[in-house]
Amino acid sequence: MSDQGSKRLDAIFDFIREIDKEKGIIRQTYVLKGERKETDAEHAWHMAVMVLLLKEYANEDFDTLKCISMLLVHDLVEVYAGDTYCYDAQAVKGQAEREQAAADRLFAILPEDLGKSMRALWEEFEACRSPEARFAKTMDNLQPMMLNAASDGKAWTEHGVQLKQILKRNEKSALGSRMLWDYAKAHFIAPNLEKGRIGNDAGDKL
Amino acid sequence: MSDQGSKRLDAIFDFIREIDKEKGIIRQTYVLKGERKETDAEHAWHMAVMVLLLKEYANEDFDTLKCISMLLVHDLVEVYAGDTYCYDAQAVKGQAEREQAAADRLFAILPEDLGKSMRALWEEFEACRSPEARFAKTMDNLQPMMLNAASDGKAWTEHGVQLKQILKRNEKSALGSRMLWDYAKAHFIAPNLEKGRIGNDAGDKL
Repeated sequence: MSDQGSKRLDAIFDFIREIDKEKGIIRQTYVLKGERKETDAEHAWHMAVMVLLLKEYANEDFDTLKCISMLLVHDLVEVYAGDTYCYDAQAVKGQAEREQAAADRLFAILPEDLGKSMRALWEEFEACRSPEARFAKTMDNLQPMMLNAASDGKAWTEHGVQLKQILKRNEKSALGSRMLWDYAKAHFIAPNLEKGRIGNDAGDKL
Repeated sequence: MSDQGSKRLDAIFDFIREIDKEKGIIRQTYVLKGERKETDAEHAWHMAVMVLLLKEYANEDFDTLKCISMLLVHDLVEVYAGDTYCYDAQAVKGQAEREQAAADRLFAILPEDLGKSMRALWEEFEACRSPEARFAKTMDNLQPMMLNAASDGKAWTEHGVQLKQILKRNEKSALGSRMLWDYAKAHFIAPNLEKGRIGNDAGDKL
């Protein structure tokens, strides 16, 4: 291998080692029936498998590889920016700036062409304007909701989450899949609303 | 949604919840500079991203989506069969039977068509006879090797691993990518052999 070729591979492996840190970023979702919280890497893996199993329920045709690639890399910036809990209004405020700065630093580790393509996947996911990004967003909303329901609403109860917050967080979920959003309302949200694990002080309608 | 349609989605989500257990399957590879061992789910995620970054180094053209899909599901049977450490000769003996039984049980949770397609991905990976499976196998060998090197050979030292074992484990690594196997020998194995973190009692040649 030429010096040039070896340098390229060195840079790619530097990046692969750097993103190992995603395994140290802890989300607010409980896994394994409430045993512990999930890492970003586990979250991305779970959603990527979900795309393989649920793509038939999408509103629109989409490129499966592109959608899965987005989900695999969509949280990478958190290795520097940290996880922002979606129901922490204060933290959400500075999130965009923190993540842009993290992206500048992280994707620069890669050779330029690969850095650009990885960053483009992340930006497309964030913009949520393509069929792939819409379905990926639906996965990103439904995966933690499913796990919250599977752990008897543990994370919702701990944070005193209200239906209003869940509906706001999910305002784009139906854009990727109306069927999956309807299913999630009936199977994940409604039973936990009934049991009081999701609050509804404002009397919102599901 | 019809009753039939709802039953199908129930089965798919039952499977998605069941494979949450992959986050509880602990491998022998250390992550985060040796802080703790990796879960199967994290391992699968890391390799899927590696395919996006390293596919240009494959010996043959291959279908990226198929290769990534294989890596996402290749360890699913371990939710029942457990992880088998590749250098534990006793455990490796019963591995194939344990994993077949696990596959029968696990993939039966899914609707038949999806169960078949998921199982086919796993079997194709195991058989290692397609370009996608060959590259996936290279990833499955190189990802833990890279992490072992990044944690100063911690897992190798703990298990007293010999070069002979590593070479046997990697006898298919060059089939997916000669370039990546050469790189791995030079950058991951050789320095650890020199430092004595990989043993070489038999005086094998790298």
